[in-house]
Amino acid sequence: MSNSKLIYLDNNATTKVDEQVLEAMMPYFCQYYGNPSSIYEFGGLNSRVIKDSRETLREFFGARSAKEIFFTASGSESANMAIRGILERDKSKNHLITTKVEHPCVLNLHKQLEKEGYNVTYVGVNSVGELNTDELYEAVNEKTALVSVMYANNETGVIFPVEEIAQKVKSKNKDTKIYVDAVQAAGKINLDVENTEIDMMGISGHKFHAPKGIGALYVKSSVLISPLIIGGHQENGKRAGTENVPSIVGLAKAASLAQDALPYESTKVKELRDKLETGILSKIYNARLNSCSNNRVPNTTNIGFEYIEGELILLNLNDLGICASSGSACTSGSLDPSHVLKAMGVPFTALHGSIRFSLSRYTTEDEIDYTIAKMPEVVNKLTALSPFQKELAELKRRKGII
Amino acid sequence: MSNSKLIYLDNNATTKVDEQVLEAMMPYFCQYYGNPSSIYEFGGLNSRVIKDSRETLREFFGARSAKEIFFTASGSESANMAIRGILERDKSKNHLITTKVEHPCVLNLHKQLEKEGYNVTYVGVNSVGELNTDELYEAVNEKTALVSVMYANNETGVIFPVEEIAQKVKSKNKDTKIYVDAVQAAGKINLDVENTEIDMMGISGHKFHAPKGIGALYVKSSVLISPLIIGGHQENGKRAGTENVPSIVGLAKAASLAQDALPYESTKVKELRDKLETGILSKIYNARLNSCSNNRVPNTTNIGFEYIEGELILLNLNDLGICASSGSACTSGSLDPSHVLKAMGVPFTALHGSIRFSLSRYTTEDEIDYTIAKMPEVVNKLTALSPFQKELAELKRRKGII
Repeated sequence: MSNSKLIYLDNNATTKVDEQVLEAMMPYFCQYYGNPSSIYEFGGLNSRVIKDSRETLREFFGARSAKEIFFTASGSESANMAIRGILERDKSKNHLITTKVEHPCVLNLHKQLEKEGYNVTYVGVNSVGELNTDELYEAVNEKTALVSVMYANNETGVIFPVEEIAQKVKSKNKDTKIYVDAVQAAGKINLDVENTEIDMMGISGHKFHAPKGIGALYVKSSVLISPLIIGGHQENGKRAGTENVPSIVGLAKAASLAQDALPYESTKVKELRDKLETGILSKIYNARLNSCSNNRVPNTTNIGFEYIEGELILLNLNDLGICASSGSACTSGSLDPSHVLKAMGVPFTALHGSIRFSLSRYTTEDEIDYTIAKMPEVVNKLTALSPFQKELAELKRRKGII
Repeated sequence: MSNSKLIYLDNNATTKVDEQVLEAMMPYFCQYYGNPSSIYEFGGLNSRVIKDSRETLREFFGARSAKEIFFTASGSESANMAIRGILERDKSKNHLITTKVEHPCVLNLHKQLEKEGYNVTYVGVNSVGELNTDELYEAVNEKTALVSVMYANNETGVIFPVEEIAQKVKSKNKDTKIYVDAVQAAGKINLDVENTEIDMMGISGHKFHAPKGIGALYVKSSVLISPLIIGGHQENGKRAGTENVPSIVGLAKAASLAQDALPYESTKVKELRDKLETGILSKIYNARLNSCSNNRVPNTTNIGFEYIEGELILLNLNDLGICASSGSACTSGSLDPSHVLKAMGVPFTALHGSIRFSLSRYTTEDEIDYTIAKMPEVVNKLTALSPFQKELAELKRRKGII
């Protein structure tokens, strides 16, 4: 399959590695391949390269000290390392709070922690995917060890007020720790942990044009965690394993490029996203915007197509060279509808026909125009085949089309 | 620092990525970057690539089924995933057995497990670094959950009889599980797990010319483990996180190249290692071979230089462009002498002056000749500065040199 004409609108699943990122990584595969822990200069060089990369990540997180940055192999590892790490360290509290719309790496970990004896409160969202923060504050008590809240939702793009949440949770219980899964926020909006009460924050490189297999975890210097992977002294004893030098360099380069591109994200990428959204909604009568929240990352939209199957839309788009998704890639393979849209109360009629489009700084206006032009063909064809013709006619009537 | 004239004799620390490995990886960074979990063809392509790579790794391990192979981010993760995974799954037994000479990822994990309430038996080695297997069998009892034994030691290269160990342990307690850290064996000797009683085996790509940041874990299909990293459905639910496609492809290519190169390892690499060993021992009177075991991986030698400091030797070698090490890179930064050499009872006089040379299929005869030529200069200079002149004179007398 050639990807020369590919229209890639699934950047919340993964992104293309930026050519400059790959270029930065290249010398560290076959040329400067030394082990950073080695005593000789050839290894020490890589130790310095990691130090520089850690400093770049410090800036990207807006952290106080580079010592607060730990490299991991994924966003999932960052979340597991943070959450397990804090609970392992202090076992005095048995209550956890998270949201119903977290990524599986947080949600499934909490389900496991319930089996291990923790009480977990799962906070809901409203109909546009915004967090019920009052419900969250209400749940905080003296036994609350940790609150884990994502920065931006992967399916809807809705941004949660994590700074405010951290502050209000701490005002209720100063010992409660805060983990923020920033995987879908990093590279899309500015991170600034230093001036917040957030204790830990995880990111994943491949969501912002670094390669797969590299992530990072911010841990505030005053917060102690136990390691998830025990062994050598790497990452200040918090994460054993020879440092993945090329990918660390790639992550730093990607972070630096993403930081520079933030103004473009919030203007041009947002414009294109809005154009796509408006275009589809104006041309397809059975389309509904699953989240109209103004507080979304600039690249994401999630649109439900009533009375048709999302998988069929995706397969038809695939034939046109358009990549989009029905939700998290990490939950794919299951036929269950999105837990995020369910939590929002998206009606059953649209739940199975919802599509996420996620753009990047590589998305062009031509690609968006092409997608807007093709979507009605695809959707109308499938709508005509839907067994719910009576309901569709009623929908038309309601919308004043007939 | 230019590495054009670098003589790299520290391949047990890490290796150069093979150019063919990098070439195989390249299309998956910027071209075929889809998420393997995605429904569209662009993602599905990578799902197939992972399947093919898993099959290559199955062959490399000599496993029965590709379903027994899990990709990880490092040898340390493989060990933690295996050991934690088996203990989490079955908490009915509280006794563990490992060796005194394991890599830190196994040894330090066991020290942590002791704090968590496990009883651990640490089995010793003899003076040439061979495992006291009788001591190991003796220790097995009805409460023994797991025996973790490395395949080849990273510092001495000594191969442990893991297949026999697995069989004899199981004959004493059929429910005891066996983990083999094969990080230093993979790519040096043939792996053949299918016909053994070994339950789990971990490897690390960057020890055999794959990039850093990728490893694998074999788990026999009849053995159930809990995941270390919880989240998405990847790796059959045993290891969450978007698959590191380029590195998985690189690991498979490296495994395939290493398998093809095994005959070269056991002949030419061994010849060069033996030449280096003999050359140094014959030319330097205060050199002693720390392990003369015939049962060593072909690329490793560990030589003690009595009454001088290993770090000084390494720094002098660094000035000559020769990279070697005083032991595991993962324990570097500490001034403690090697736990492996201590367990072997290497005398105090040589303990602090021991150097590991580890070759690869890239090592040339010229490089070995140069090293043999330079070592006496370096060692003699440092020996002349040693405060132990009386002892050195006595050593000369004992060796009949004076």
